[in-house]
Amino acid sequence: MQKYSNRLKTENKSVGFVPTMGYLHEGHLSLVRRSLKENDKTIVSVFINPTQFGPKEDLARYPRDLKRDERMLRKIGADTVFYPTAKEMYPKPYRTYVNVDCLTDALCGRSRPGHFRGVTTVVAKLLNIVKPDVAYFGQKDAQQAIAIKKMANDLNMNVGIKILPIVREPDGLAMSSRNSALSPKERSYATVLHKTLLLAKQMVGKGERSSAKVINKMRALIRQEDASRIDYISIVNPETLKPIKTIHGEALIALAVYIGRTRLIDNLKLKVR
Amino acid sequence: MQKYSNRLKTENKSVGFVPTMGYLHEGHLSLVRRSLKENDKTIVSVFINPTQFGPKEDLARYPRDLKRDERMLRKIGADTVFYPTAKEMYPKPYRTYVNVDCLTDALCGRSRPGHFRGVTTVVAKLLNIVKPDVAYFGQKDAQQAIAIKKMANDLNMNVGIKILPIVREPDGLAMSSRNSALSPKERSYATVLHKTLLLAKQMVGKGERSSAKVINKMRALIRQEDASRIDYISIVNPETLKPIKTIHGEALIALAVYIGRTRLIDNLKLKVR
Repeated sequence: MQKYSNRLKTENKSVGFVPTMGYLHEGHLSLVRRSLKENDKTIVSVFINPTQFGPKEDLARYPRDLKRDERMLRKIGADTVFYPTAKEMYPKPYRTYVNVDCLTDALCGRSRPGHFRGVTTVVAKLLNIVKPDVAYFGQKDAQQAIAIKKMANDLNMNVGIKILPIVREPDGLAMSSRNSALSPKERSYATVLHKTLLLAKQMVGKGERSSAKVINKMRALIRQEDASRIDYISIVNPETLKPIKTIHGEALIALAVYIGRTRLIDNLKLKVR
Repeated sequence: MQKYSNRLKTENKSVGFVPTMGYLHEGHLSLVRRSLKENDKTIVSVFINPTQFGPKEDLARYPRDLKRDERMLRKIGADTVFYPTAKEMYPKPYRTYVNVDCLTDALCGRSRPGHFRGVTTVVAKLLNIVKPDVAYFGQKDAQQAIAIKKMANDLNMNVGIKILPIVREPDGLAMSSRNSALSPKERSYATVLHKTLLLAKQMVGKGERSSAKVINKMRALIRQEDASRIDYISIVNPETLKPIKTIHGEALIALAVYIGRTRLIDNLKLKVR
């Protein structure tokens, strides 16, 4: 892969990169399509990164089907799929980690300690291997997107980081590889994340400015679903990720909810004048 | 700098890189000369990196003279000097750090907490900016060299890391920018570091295999100098940096000693059959 990306550099080809953990869906494909439009070459990585999973998390259960992924990518014309093994990516003894301070403590960082260190480390590695001009990420993982943007900038990685909008199912559920783990019943419950965000949007639209009040209503709506357990609901400054008490200017409403054993996340950006 | 290094890539020029903190001496120049021999272009950075100094360390006192450095580099034919400011390298709020676990806890890491995090972070940044094929470091900073090699490998930086031998003054003192801070009296005391290493070498040559016994004799010799204070003397495995009790195979003898206010380091690699 490194030889290939070096060759693309000397050939002066622009390279777009979409790092994924596979089991692709329309969300990933929207990133790949954008990259195909904007670059000479598009490289997609499929790597289920062990260092971003906690010891009690769903690494073993994470869905995988490389053949299916390759078929989907070929169909839309992606040039290259890079699928290293965990042994190749983390030869023992592995010792080096990239940390983005502050931005990774709140939200998902609180319930998934070490998660973002794993994410920023593997993305740093992949960017060093693929050497793209632009890398594409989805807004669904809002905190990840912010941490990666900050890392690329702080470490002078000389790569554009583009964050594209969440792609949703017709009933509003944010697309996620993890949705495949939901039973049919859980799948119908799962729409509550998006419904809750729409409720928040409506409240703010009607003039509510208290984060606490909005969050309380969101909590109440989710609690109506027996099979759900709230991990967090937060309203934060979309740059610093610090909680805001009064909603004004830009705000990010983010939540994580367990539907059965499956942890789902979603978010919405608001602009209030 | 990034535009220039990108252009060198598209021109398929090989780039050698020598990162320094300036106030150059023959040790640095030996790295630059080697790079000039081995690459189409040689880039030298001069940057006194604030993040590798502790709050009570000698950042303010660290010697600097960019004009002199430029003169010396021009004389031996170095192509490019890169001298960013601290503001450019660490725009606020700066949040991203590269850590190499384990290798940075022992030796200098113990007495200079946070030092190696600063070193690996700035070297990662500089390598991302300069994008060299090979980067050159001196063996004098043995632990730094090992940490950087590990980082470059772990993070797939696709750069060769070459470690060149310590360059010494005629009386054995390892060359260091910090030597300029020594008073004439301290300068004469400072030879004790190298003398101590030679004593250790002699003992091992005569069959001594106990690290404790070697270290004790080294301590005794240094304590004869009133103006000196030992920070550490260690005999370690040169790859893991873990202390070894019995000397066999490869061993790194490393020490740090304060001569007056100035902290000096030196080391020696031994091979015992």
